[in-house]
Amino acid sequence: MVMGLGSRFASILESRGPLCVGIDPSTDALRTVGLHDTAEGALEFGRAIVAVSASRVGIVKPQVAYFERFGSAGYGALETLIREAREAGLVVIADAKRGDIGSTMEGYATAWLGDGPLQSDALTVSPYQGFAALEPVFSRAETNGATVFVLSSTSNPDADDVQRASLANETLPRLVARYARQRSGNTRTVGVVVGATRDLAARGLTASDLDGLLILAPGFGAQGASLRDISDLFGAASTTVIPSVSRSVVQHGLANCATAIEEHLRELGL
Amino acid sequence: MVMGLGSRFASILESRGPLCVGIDPSTDALRTVGLHDTAEGALEFGRAIVAVSASRVGIVKPQVAYFERFGSAGYGALETLIREAREAGLVVIADAKRGDIGSTMEGYATAWLGDGPLQSDALTVSPYQGFAALEPVFSRAETNGATVFVLSSTSNPDADDVQRASLANETLPRLVARYARQRSGNTRTVGVVVGATRDLAARGLTASDLDGLLILAPGFGAQGASLRDISDLFGAASTTVIPSVSRSVVQHGLANCATAIEEHLRELGL
Repeated sequence: MVMGLGSRFASILESRGPLCVGIDPSTDALRTVGLHDTAEGALEFGRAIVAVSASRVGIVKPQVAYFERFGSAGYGALETLIREAREAGLVVIADAKRGDIGSTMEGYATAWLGDGPLQSDALTVSPYQGFAALEPVFSRAETNGATVFVLSSTSNPDADDVQRASLANETLPRLVARYARQRSGNTRTVGVVVGATRDLAARGLTASDLDGLLILAPGFGAQGASLRDISDLFGAASTTVIPSVSRSVVQHGLANCATAIEEHLRELGL
Repeated sequence: MVMGLGSRFASILESRGPLCVGIDPSTDALRTVGLHDTAEGALEFGRAIVAVSASRVGIVKPQVAYFERFGSAGYGALETLIREAREAGLVVIADAKRGDIGSTMEGYATAWLGDGPLQSDALTVSPYQGFAALEPVFSRAETNGATVFVLSSTSNPDADDVQRASLANETLPRLVARYARQRSGNTRTVGVVVGATRDLAARGLTASDLDGLLILAPGFGAQGASLRDISDLFGAASTTVIPSVSRSVVQHGLANCATAIEEHLRELGL
């Protein structure tokens, strides 16, 4: 058995708890903290969050889009940030929401879960081209002990115009959860993304649909939900929820990140 | 009115015809043509296709995943390739299938349709988080005269496990097409991706669902469909189909690319 990154996920959850700190160097966020809206600014932003997170939190989640907007320079910054975060003992979820088929999906698997410069511990992916089309990232994750989080029910209300669709009386979020449970089995290879802005019932999901799955849950903090609401929102599935906070961590500047993270840990009872 | 890239699309279609040549430097493709599986190999591969395409074809479509697997070095190669292709008079579709929400989607809009180093004429996107969530790329495309192709019905058979889902008796491919027509109106701002491996009826689509939309259609050549079959596959919607060929162009080596492209143009009657 590979003592790999999936195992790192399990051991991080045990030792540090589930809080995930997002690294979202948007134009607005960089302005808020007084950094330049450049690849260098994005790196400096990420480094500040990593420095504060490494002592208290187990998981960080850089949002790839905010680096991609600077092209190769942004990717250079992201490579540095991912490497430094992992060296600091953090588990890195690359929030890229990639989705494609066949050898193209294999390309994304190589990019994010291979041993190249962007290698991360987990990747978010999008299932529009079919769940089975994601197999190249699942098998890569299995080999490397990494985890793939498949979008199931996202935190934006306008997701309804697609995510309320159903097939044989199952909504897409539920279908994705079922596929993920089948594929993951007892491993931590495949998890799901379920936004925290509404409860499971409002998403056509039940706790048993998610039983045993790692659940990456954005939508906490500035987006609306409080970390105190996890059990109300996720019921019996709460034990495997990885709540993600981003904007609320930096909204009072980088100097106050540590305080914001401590407050979130208190909300989680940690 | 901006005499922008959407207009370039229209004028390219008129002057050069609709054939789109994919640039897919996968591990297999690079091996087939005898190039190294590196960022430099991918750039050399792309340059060879651009050189041949520029004299006979209007549109190229680099597959971003094959560059992303080399991290920032791959993105550096892609930046060079996109710039050189556009300087050679080609319209560039960045096949990235990005999809997210809010300021994150705005990040992708900036990356691919802004005036940064990856600026392209068109971008493929994925609608899993809702059609409205893609608005930042639509409005950016509108401003810049670019085009966004939204995944509707893709060419892989295993897409059925998601794409047969329906909402209020409309399948997802049809919903996406309807949203795209509403958003695009008489512009070329929003088009759709519809794979060419099955006819429209088999996808729950009709030609009138696609009326007036630009339709990016992969699945020709090595993937199975012949360019001679366009009218059988797309019926009355054939006039706005942009057929994409990739593997068939390079399968006999880079020295034979020109011949392969000429053959495809003959199949189109051009």
